[in-house]
Amino acid sequence: LFRSEFLELHPYDQANIFVNLPKDIRLQIYTYLSPDEMSEIIEHFELEDVGEIITEMNPRFAAQIFDELSTDDAVDIMNTLERNQIASYLTLMQRDEAKEIKDLLHYEERTAGSIMTTEFVVVNQNMTIRQAMLHLREKAPDAETIYYVFVTDNDKRLAGVISLRDLIIAEDDWVVSDIMSEHVVYASAGDDQEYIARLMRDYDFLALPVVDFKKHLLGIITVDDILDVMDEEASDDYSKLAAVRDMDRNDLSAWDSARKRLPWLIILLFLGMITASLIGQFENTLEQVAILAVFIPLIAGMAGNTGTQALAVTVRGIATGDAMSEGVLKRLKRETLTGLITGVVCGIVITLIIMVWQGMSEIHLGLVVGFSIMISLIVATIAGAFLPLLMHKLKIDPAVASGPFITTINDTISVIIYFGTATIFMEYLV
Amino acid sequence: LFRSEFLELHPYDQANIFVNLPKDIRLQIYTYLSPDEMSEIIEHFELEDVGEIITEMNPRFAAQIFDELSTDDAVDIMNTLERNQIASYLTLMQRDEAKEIKDLLHYEERTAGSIMTTEFVVVNQNMTIRQAMLHLREKAPDAETIYYVFVTDNDKRLAGVISLRDLIIAEDDWVVSDIMSEHVVYASAGDDQEYIARLMRDYDFLALPVVDFKKHLLGIITVDDILDVMDEEASDDYSKLAAVRDMDRNDLSAWDSARKRLPWLIILLFLGMITASLIGQFENTLEQVAILAVFIPLIAGMAGNTGTQALAVTVRGIATGDAMSEGVLKRLKRETLTGLITGVVCGIVITLIIMVWQGMSEIHLGLVVGFSIMISLIVATIAGAFLPLLMHKLKIDPAVASGPFITTINDTISVIIYFGTATIFMEYLV
Ligand SMILES: [Mg+2]
Ligand SMILES: [Mg+2]
Ligand SMILES: [Mg+2]
Ligand SMILES: [Mg+2]
Ligand SMILES: [Mg+2]
Ligand SMILES: [Mg+2]
Ligand SMILES: [Mg+2]
Ligand SMILES: [Mg+2]
Ligand SMILES: [Mg+2]
Ligand SMILES: [Mg+2]
Ligand SMILES: [Mg+2]
Ligand SMILES: [Mg+2]
Ligand SMILES: [Mg+2]
Repeated sequence: LFRSEFLELHPYDQANIFVNLPKDIRLQIYTYLSPDEMSEIIEHFELEDVGEIITEMNPRFAAQIFDELSTDDAVDIMNTLERNQIASYLTLMQRDEAKEIKDLLHYEERTAGSIMTTEFVVVNQNMTIRQAMLHLREKAPDAETIYYVFVTDNDKRLAGVISLRDLIIAEDDWVVSDIMSEHVVYASAGDDQEYIARLMRDYDFLALPVVDFKKHLLGIITVDDILDVMDEEASDDYSKLAAVRDMDRNDLSAWDSARKRLPWLIILLFLGMITASLIGQFENTLEQVAILAVFIPLIAGMAGNTGTQALAVTVRGIATGDAMSEGVLKRLKRETLTGLITGVVCGIVITLIIMVWQGMSEIHLGLVVGFSIMISLIVATIAGAFLPLLMHKLKIDPAVASGPFITTINDTISVIIYFGTATIFMEYLV
Repeated sequence: LFRSEFLELHPYDQANIFVNLPKDIRLQIYTYLSPDEMSEIIEHFELEDVGEIITEMNPRFAAQIFDELSTDDAVDIMNTLERNQIASYLTLMQRDEAKEIKDLLHYEERTAGSIMTTEFVVVNQNMTIRQAMLHLREKAPDAETIYYVFVTDNDKRLAGVISLRDLIIAEDDWVVSDIMSEHVVYASAGDDQEYIARLMRDYDFLALPVVDFKKHLLGIITVDDILDVMDEEASDDYSKLAAVRDMDRNDLSAWDSARKRLPWLIILLFLGMITASLIGQFENTLEQVAILAVFIPLIAGMAGNTGTQALAVTVRGIATGDAMSEGVLKRLKRETLTGLITGVVCGIVITLIIMVWQGMSEIHLGLVVGFSIMISLIVATIAGAFLPLLMHKLKIDPAVASGPFITTINDTISVIIYFGTATIFMEYLV
């Protein structure tokens, strides 16, 4: 009774219920469910939880589950296990399934190879539609998707693709090569997963073939995995902008969170000490006009903020591909002009505020602060736009140019501009 | 010749070529292509470019294109046009297509209703598989997806769903209700698109039905549109963390960029003035110990950075749904502990650095700075985590609690802590 009720649910809901059950009930359920049924539940687990679940099972049962799983999911799970655990499950698995997984384990994280699956439907270009449909029906239970059928030529090279939609509309005795679309978009196993996600988004594909250098089919990437990729990449960029090493998940303890944030904070602490020692050079100026200190956080803060804006726009532009369609120089010129406009406007506004607040007597102070903000914002905007573009050119992920890093640099520059200006116009200030 | 070569390409590539052609050639192409062929190209245009393309066409041709387009894409394009343009195209369109689009135009942006399409395949639960397949073949050319077939009961309420995979495996004389899955996951037209994206990601759906309060089918949302949604939402969160109003696209001029960034900068300028006037209160302290000013950017910067980290982790946790599965109080407690750890570590490190740098004579200064950093980081972490959680409770998008905003707040708090501490221990500093 429980069995049929439970299996009616979507595997994602089953997984959610399952993970919250006490261990002894879970152990009982393993005896009720087939490896196939269990594999569908496992597929929807959070990767962090799977390791525990797998290891509490009978190893033979676990190996059968690995046989049933899509190879891409099996590989993801294997990657969370220890080396010797992987080896022992692989020996218990069916030989051909184990071989496929061993091959997939070699691809680097975040590449097309690491997210592709080897269970796809492929037909020869000379088959009739009838033959192709028969083959499709046969493969349907195991294939990751049957909605795209890939077509190979007689040398087993990728030659075309047909959607199931076209297949069921076609007449039985037509030949595959007549209705297939020959302009197949494909990827290499080493391609960055972010690039794959962009392809899928632009072309609206449900699956994308991955080929080797001879154009032999290695696997396919399905859109459901791309949703996870987009989430992962978005979290990644977001956390880098905020200078958190990996995004914490809620099962982390405070110690883990702190350990992830501290390395950045310590680096920033040392960078901050550079700013401090630079201001230290102006101790003389400071002792004569103590009120100058009042505007330090304002100027540093504004420079940090504009820099972060320019940085974010540029990093995101690179991620979506917009930034590179425009030329780098053109983009820098545009950002410089943007910095000029925001700088002049903010400089004038702050001068006016200080004059209203302090009266005409402090007009010189107002001008120094306004001028410093103007220059700081221009420099900060250029720095914020230039740094990620440079990193992209150097093939470093531009997202590592995190917000706090650029903020600290801009803090330093702006404070030097401020005290430099103040020292030059000292006679008007005292 | 051009025609057949061109049409061989994927519509996305066609769109890319098309948008870069000179206007007179484009005008010529409109006479070569059918509205159906043109609609597939239009579908892959950037929304910013479509308006221009549509208005340069013969209005009758444009209306025919609107007839052919998926209703969701037609609505997206209509939303970029002027009110009177929309009205004139709607009158030129086929009556039933125009009616569907008029209905869809009412849904608010970023809701399920605004991204759903009305072209789906639906069958009655009493049909045989043979009847269902016949119906499917007939609908195939127009439907947005034929890979999910939705099933209604005799009151036209959503009763189940069958995948085409299950359909083609099934025997011809079985009845739909026997093989359909009854636990359909569905959405309401008013649901947030971010929530829809999360559902699709978790359940690995290719399409999701949208129903009204009587469970009548209104439309479906397909996964290709969800890829765009995820991109849009990621850009949105990212730009808010960096306090840019909308993300600029590269066709924007420097003036447009500046206009989008300035409102935030002006607000931050005024917030910064609050900090300035607060430091102004401590002018006395400053005049006695000018060296205190040296550490203002460091302390304010560190508080800003930790606050941003806590903010980012929390906002992202809310976006992916992780943060809410854990309790709010538990999460706050954990962040407080994280703040305590990072605060104590950074406080000790900075005290040591100052002692090494300035020698034992400045031990009191080092202790004041270290203590201030410790308290500032704790407060900043709590603020960074608390603010987005509060906003989420108040049903405000937590992502509007942008980085610079929280940074400025934390700047202010940290500077007060610093000067407060310094004033109390003044006798040891002078
Ligand atoms: Mg899957
Ligand atoms: Mg398998
Ligand atoms: Mg995977
Ligand atoms: Mg798309
Ligand atoms: Mg998969
Ligand atoms: Mg990335
Ligand atoms: Mg700052
Ligand atoms: Mg579409
Ligand atoms: Mg239509
Ligand atoms: Mg849409
Ligand atoms: Mg998924
Ligand atoms: Mg669509
Ligand atoms: Mg959002």
